[in-house]
Amino acid sequence: MIPSKEALLKAQKTVQPYTHKTPVLTSTLINELIGAEVFFKCENFQKMGAFKMRGAVNKILSLSPEERAKGVVTHSSGNFGQAVALSAKLLGVSAYIVMPENAPQVKKNAVRAYGGIVTECESTIAAREQETHRIQKETGATFMHPSNDMEVILGNSTSASELLEKHSDLDVIFAPVGGGGLVAGTALAAHYFGTNCQTVGGEPLAVDDAYRSLLSGKIETNETTNTIADGLRTYLGDQNFPIIQQLVSKIIRVEEQEIVQAMQLIWERLKIIIEPSSAVAFAALLKSEEEFKGKKVGVIFSGGNIDVKNLPF
Amino acid sequence: MIPSKEALLKAQKTVQPYTHKTPVLTSTLINELIGAEVFFKCENFQKMGAFKMRGAVNKILSLSPEERAKGVVTHSSGNFGQAVALSAKLLGVSAYIVMPENAPQVKKNAVRAYGGIVTECESTIAAREQETHRIQKETGATFMHPSNDMEVILGNSTSASELLEKHSDLDVIFAPVGGGGLVAGTALAAHYFGTNCQTVGGEPLAVDDAYRSLLSGKIETNETTNTIADGLRTYLGDQNFPIIQQLVSKIIRVEEQEIVQAMQLIWERLKIIIEPSSAVAFAALLKSEEEFKGKKVGVIFSGGNIDVKNLPF
Repeated sequence: MIPSKEALLKAQKTVQPYTHKTPVLTSTLINELIGAEVFFKCENFQKMGAFKMRGAVNKILSLSPEERAKGVVTHSSGNFGQAVALSAKLLGVSAYIVMPENAPQVKKNAVRAYGGIVTECESTIAAREQETHRIQKETGATFMHPSNDMEVILGNSTSASELLEKHSDLDVIFAPVGGGGLVAGTALAAHYFGTNCQTVGGEPLAVDDAYRSLLSGKIETNETTNTIADGLRTYLGDQNFPIIQQLVSKIIRVEEQEIVQAMQLIWERLKIIIEPSSAVAFAALLKSEEEFKGKKVGVIFSGGNIDVKNLPF
Repeated sequence: MIPSKEALLKAQKTVQPYTHKTPVLTSTLINELIGAEVFFKCENFQKMGAFKMRGAVNKILSLSPEERAKGVVTHSSGNFGQAVALSAKLLGVSAYIVMPENAPQVKKNAVRAYGGIVTECESTIAAREQETHRIQKETGATFMHPSNDMEVILGNSTSASELLEKHSDLDVIFAPVGGGGLVAGTALAAHYFGTNCQTVGGEPLAVDDAYRSLLSGKIETNETTNTIADGLRTYLGDQNFPIIQQLVSKIIRVEEQEIVQAMQLIWERLKIIIEPSSAVAFAALLKSEEEFKGKKVGVIFSGGNIDVKNLPF
């Protein structure tokens, strides 16, 4: 059911020439605060500012030359759109990006700056999917799902693989949970490259579909999507859910205020910009610090794309 | 008149065990924007969040054991106070920090967190000096000047020395100009370790004392200190002015809005937190980009201590 270690090693080799080996940062003060040794894997310093670059590159490179010639298409309100646009540009492929008209302007601009062909649509799932189908039909472009695609999951796994290459003795890795593609990739890397390394997901309480999915054993959705962590509003899929069920130890839910406080702590102490979705994994660690005292803990910062003119503090 | 190459090498050896070798970052997008290759030396990632750590460590280690036993004292509204407090703590020395009562709370808290003994006073130069003299008299502590002290200047030089160790062929290094201690140290490093490497200062137009000092040939002061770059409100001194006269090619003045825009560009593109004073050197480069097209340019980011709840954008 789950992909092999060889598949993860192949993804690392595939992704590496087109992505940054992002730095791992530490902070004495944060270690003292939590009573653990924490290693932050900084995908905010990834190309286009988020881990999504890894999955997008891996997916595009899994396509046949004929498929690549017709381009790729996705719908995304944010980072995945940028990742597909930039990966496609680097690999000489056309990228059609369907974006909701109310997506942050800074994200629309970024997709266009990376050469993506943007089509705006209404901010509903139905409108996005309809527009995407139209483009698929007209161009023959391959649809790229941001999280429920095994090649994307394998690409995402390379962040934790790199972290474990440097720190093979981590006891646990925290990753944020949105569509499930990052936490599934992280869990695969921890499974194959860690030494008894758990994977823990952090999820906003306001969109706790993944938490509920693990309880019920089936993919749950959210009634509302009212969280500051705009990258985590989606739900799991049939490709990543089985991996999460099998390999993720648990999901810790955090309040909106905890997300904002975690983000502020990182900005002030590490002097780096992370976006709210990134802060969710760290907020989950802060919330459960008693459990991880004395441990070696990895935290994946998923990205750093935020409108600095519109901050929650 | 100016210190020897050996003095700079000695400072590097002295400072190194107590400071971080801060990273040098680059951005393809910023290089394209400016048409130059830019290398950002990130003192915002230095211990306590600013280059001032380097000068403080070097100064304290230049004192005799008898002097160290009596402690050190300084007056500072910001980073230098933190630097003295933390250096003194690491070196087992008492640190008395006189701070104006209206200094940002975040900076007072940081000085106390580093074990500094804070005395608050009125926000005038006279009150600060009076309080400092009182402490000197009562404790025998050595006064530490934030910028007009040769040991501090030599300590500061180590940032640019490290940058040139990695990139020996820089054509120019930009540094912000406040009290003159950083730009003087940078100019010394460029002089001894560069290959025809210029040093250019960036200074807020609102406090352009150094610019005017280079024109008039004597140390000028400011009528008002109304700039967002709160680290750059002071003026030059007799120790650093001769170095600046001899080794700094020129000083480029920037408007407040240019400082804010430069800061925002760095936050958004490099995903790192720099304070307004840091942004001044980069703003000076942005303003003069025509002159530096095709060049290899170093920029010293002096620090990253900013109240994220009170931003100019």
